[in-house]
Amino acid sequence: MEKNQTVDMLSGLSCPVPITDYKTVLLAHGGGGRLTHQLIEKMFLSQFDNPLLAPLHDGAVFTLGNTTLALSTDGYVVNPLFFPGGDIGELAVNGTVNDLAMCGANPKYLSVGFILEEGLPMEDLWRVVQSMKSAAQRAGVELATGDTKVVDKGKGDRMFVTTTGIGVIPPGRTINPRNARPGDNIIVNGPIAVHGIAIMSVREGLEFETAIASDTAPLNGLVDAMFGAGELHVLRDPTRGGVASALNEIAGSAGVGIFITEEAIPLTDDVRGACEILGLDPLYVANEGKLLAFVPPDSTSAVLDAMHRHPLGRDAVVIGSVVQDHPRVVVMKTGIGGTRVVDMLSGEQLPRIC
Amino acid sequence: MEKNQTVDMLSGLSCPVPITDYKTVLLAHGGGGRLTHQLIEKMFLSQFDNPLLAPLHDGAVFTLGNTTLALSTDGYVVNPLFFPGGDIGELAVNGTVNDLAMCGANPKYLSVGFILEEGLPMEDLWRVVQSMKSAAQRAGVELATGDTKVVDKGKGDRMFVTTTGIGVIPPGRTINPRNARPGDNIIVNGPIAVHGIAIMSVREGLEFETAIASDTAPLNGLVDAMFGAGELHVLRDPTRGGVASALNEIAGSAGVGIFITEEAIPLTDDVRGACEILGLDPLYVANEGKLLAFVPPDSTSAVLDAMHRHPLGRDAVVIGSVVQDHPRVVVMKTGIGGTRVVDMLSGEQLPRIC
Repeated sequence: MEKNQTVDMLSGLSCPVPITDYKTVLLAHGGGGRLTHQLIEKMFLSQFDNPLLAPLHDGAVFTLGNTTLALSTDGYVVNPLFFPGGDIGELAVNGTVNDLAMCGANPKYLSVGFILEEGLPMEDLWRVVQSMKSAAQRAGVELATGDTKVVDKGKGDRMFVTTTGIGVIPPGRTINPRNARPGDNIIVNGPIAVHGIAIMSVREGLEFETAIASDTAPLNGLVDAMFGAGELHVLRDPTRGGVASALNEIAGSAGVGIFITEEAIPLTDDVRGACEILGLDPLYVANEGKLLAFVPPDSTSAVLDAMHRHPLGRDAVVIGSVVQDHPRVVVMKTGIGGTRVVDMLSGEQLPRIC
Repeated sequence: MEKNQTVDMLSGLSCPVPITDYKTVLLAHGGGGRLTHQLIEKMFLSQFDNPLLAPLHDGAVFTLGNTTLALSTDGYVVNPLFFPGGDIGELAVNGTVNDLAMCGANPKYLSVGFILEEGLPMEDLWRVVQSMKSAAQRAGVELATGDTKVVDKGKGDRMFVTTTGIGVIPPGRTINPRNARPGDNIIVNGPIAVHGIAIMSVREGLEFETAIASDTAPLNGLVDAMFGAGELHVLRDPTRGGVASALNEIAGSAGVGIFITEEAIPLTDDVRGACEILGLDPLYVANEGKLLAFVPPDSTSAVLDAMHRHPLGRDAVVIGSVVQDHPRVVVMKTGIGGTRVVDMLSGEQLPRIC
């Protein structure tokens, strides 16, 4: 107990640790599923409770002067650093751009924090920097400021990148997971589970006829086109925890039921095959460059049309809808005709996927 | 060469790595001295060159709508996580608050990115979260959004924290390191080298009559009082690399000479003693809760008076001035009457001090 005595001496805990069922941090606390949510709710929201954090959005929304802004941050710890279709730098730019877009914001400026492990080849850092530059240009954002720290060899893993973005929300856009309404159609912009399988294929040494490449991409242009076409209630990029966890979050936030149809969910043959080999359910596999949109019935066909005209929305389809039944529960009609509850990811399916 | 071939196959380097004298990242690249500057200039500015990054400010300054904003980010990798006078959480809040204040901004919202090592005691995370909450309250900022990633045991070091802050710059404030002008007096708000020595004392097991406690503190209130009293040209918090590196950065940015007087630089007896034992020059030791202000002669006495009335400025003194001679060089009149050039920190004096 000597350690605890030191703890008390130095600062003292003013109240008991709220996560009593886990004494230490597990990989699953970062996995985007049930344990991540428990950590956020019990540890962070209990201390930082404020109207900005409460919506469990992809970012915070606030007004400064006459402008409504969104602020979003994400750490990137993906392993490996370089993979088919992208690298940690591109992921870090696109991921934060997309979190802002999912708040209805036009992303403007990004900050970048590097935590480098001593001994990292300069060439690897240089490749990542070049990749961030081109990703920022593609997304139309500026890398405005940054910071670099170096930790001793063995105390990091080559490179961690944290990006934070600021964007402007045009007047009239009110995107919020709480806005999901019975009747809303749920659209996905293309095949799911691609990013997670691309990373896993590299790690597991799986070979396919053509390599599965990550679908990382900036979605702000697609989102702009969608706003131009009709009304949107909720936007969400189903990254860690996959489509299943994202839908559960939204069902929980809005207090609504969600019904999806397995056969409607787009999946490439390669990804389907890899999921079978790896024993993974594609609904729980991480995506990049994919979004879920909750669109009222009136606007659905116009929004779908606009998506189909955009390179990143060509394969957009409706995969389900919001229902009045089974509030806070996601139910799926399976391929063989039955229905099953689709729960949030529990545990860590794929560590360090982003 | 197999690795390089893979590199080229995957993405290809479009131009040679600019840091040819170092093949890998060294601890000193994160130390805030000469190698940090080389990395920023050769690697980051060459790719991200834009008017926001160019001033080498503590943050980026831009206008959205009718509001001028500052954005700043910093990673915190301090070891140990808990130390006399503070912890990584308090440091992460105050550090980013201060970087914004050094741009002349009123800090408003912070984002927090945690990178946790599997196995971190929940209690340690909880202490840090509580500490961030109270630091945010003291500084008057809101923790608006966050992210948590977990890396496998042995691939991190318990906890890294990256905070990013957004603040509003009131009309008429134009703080920039380029604004240093011959004649400006250079004020420091109190004894230097305290934070670095507090950390080193713990690491080295040094004992003093009373423990040296970190001087971490939010400086936005003090800065507000200073703006209320007179004109300010440059503000800088001399963290990594210490007072010497900060003065060299400003002398370089503005193309001016700086002359300081050793006897004027405030130093406590404990810190002086510890520096002697550890063989450290206090001018290169990291500070928190300290600022350097470049103030035109007309405003100096009013600004000093305002500082003396603030708890964090009670010991404020003039330590030197900007001169026309020796542009870009910092010269110090030593205690024994001679003069010497005070260079930027070269190498890494104190790894993982913040």
